[in-house]
Amino acid sequence: MDSRPIGVFDSGLGGLTAVKKLIQLLPNEDIVYLGDTGRVPYGSRSRETIVKYAREDTAFLLSQNVKAVVVACNTASAAAWREICAMSQEIPFYNVVTPASLAAASATQNGKIGVIGTVATVRSGAYERALALTGKARAVIQVAAPLLVPLVENGRTSPDDVVVSTIVREYVEPIVRAGADAVILGCTHYPLLRAALARAFGGDVALIDSAACTAETLARDFTANGQTGSALPGTRRYFVTDSTEGFSEMASRFLESDLTGEIAQISLEEAPEIKHKLGG
Amino acid sequence: MDSRPIGVFDSGLGGLTAVKKLIQLLPNEDIVYLGDTGRVPYGSRSRETIVKYAREDTAFLLSQNVKAVVVACNTASAAAWREICAMSQEIPFYNVVTPASLAAASATQNGKIGVIGTVATVRSGAYERALALTGKARAVIQVAAPLLVPLVENGRTSPDDVVVSTIVREYVEPIVRAGADAVILGCTHYPLLRAALARAFGGDVALIDSAACTAETLARDFTANGQTGSALPGTRRYFVTDSTEGFSEMASRFLESDLTGEIAQISLEEAPEIKHKLGG
Repeated sequence: MDSRPIGVFDSGLGGLTAVKKLIQLLPNEDIVYLGDTGRVPYGSRSRETIVKYAREDTAFLLSQNVKAVVVACNTASAAAWREICAMSQEIPFYNVVTPASLAAASATQNGKIGVIGTVATVRSGAYERALALTGKARAVIQVAAPLLVPLVENGRTSPDDVVVSTIVREYVEPIVRAGADAVILGCTHYPLLRAALARAFGGDVALIDSAACTAETLARDFTANGQTGSALPGTRRYFVTDSTEGFSEMASRFLESDLTGEIAQISLEEAPEIKHKLGG
Repeated sequence: MDSRPIGVFDSGLGGLTAVKKLIQLLPNEDIVYLGDTGRVPYGSRSRETIVKYAREDTAFLLSQNVKAVVVACNTASAAAWREICAMSQEIPFYNVVTPASLAAASATQNGKIGVIGTVATVRSGAYERALALTGKARAVIQVAAPLLVPLVENGRTSPDDVVVSTIVREYVEPIVRAGADAVILGCTHYPLLRAALARAFGGDVALIDSAACTAETLARDFTANGQTGSALPGTRRYFVTDSTEGFSEMASRFLESDLTGEIAQISLEEAPEIKHKLGG
């Protein structure tokens, strides 16, 4: 038994879809979530900046004495994984790329796998490498879809919205044309567009939710290894780098339930315990 | 004569539309531009975070020995003006809100003025206050238009794009319904959508470019006061907080010409001269 909390971070609030799944699978775990809302989005920034921000996020979670770090952010998982893992040898790190790639490899029949992600995720080539390692991917069709996050953040997710359907159709067109039968939703915002994506892909394409796959992997590992926590219901603490105002409302959209737990704002640049972890 | 450079900052690259106008009007001036590309956008963040970032941007320009600071960012102009001005008594500061409000007051016949801006700009009420001071505004209709910046940043500006026309039409509808005859484009990205906006508003509405108005005001002041620089063509230096990769290409879109001048990446959080200006 290990009663320390599980740490989860994302650039914004999309990683709460991983928290939702973790709460379902491991209701007794304490969870510390960090959303870098003062600097979101990451997906349009350079690798160098993504690494810097991801290291600060990780340092914060390490300062909270977590027993694992879940990098719920696809962009950070894809572009900064090596640098994140180098920050501690003592706890396990989970990215979203590997579990989603394994799930896609299981789901595909024809070996053609699509990936939708941010500009930085696609540029990193991380999904291509992870899918190649599964030995099941004959072709990987990657598409950068930079407008999907703004759509979700502005509450535009309905498949009947002409703006949503037009943009989604444009993005997925190369994947549909290639005949992929499994598609990785390589950003924690995209599951909120599932209905629009399903309509654009047609019924026979498996849509892989990267955050959910990661939560499942962690839950399996922790249960198998006896690393789960107490028998009491877990508590949750949510930290953000911008104001906490409006956080509950937006967070509830991703959690698909009311948010309970402490909410606080922190400064990643100034906290001494973070500087210490970064060796500064 | 004052040979120091003019400082201009924006959250990202939109403020280059102000630089473009300054170069036209005052070709001999040296210009230092700062785009906080590592933390763009500002318009969806809290006032507290906008103030923090805007003060760091201003501190950087002050460290460059500028003779004026142009706050080309509408969000910072609207939400952090008082805090920015408090940073120096020695040089003039220019925001985009006042010049655009004066221009709208001159343009309107019926006293009904529309304002399109970011969430933070609209929330601040800065345009309402500035327009009230002109004595010409009988009604101010404000609309927050959070999807316009992502559209422009992804190169979607054509009025024939159904995504652009649908979103623009939705946003401007309350302004059209109210019968406004002058509309302030309260974000430096919006002039790139001028064709789509003009079509949605119809021909008789004056569209006010806030950055261009500000450049004109500064040029008039500096010429009148003999504060212009040398008789030689001015030089330009561009600073960004994310990688400089891809900067020239994106910047050329806003400058509507090839970019010439030095380009460099800086870190606002770590530079000692900035900490000094912030009193840290």
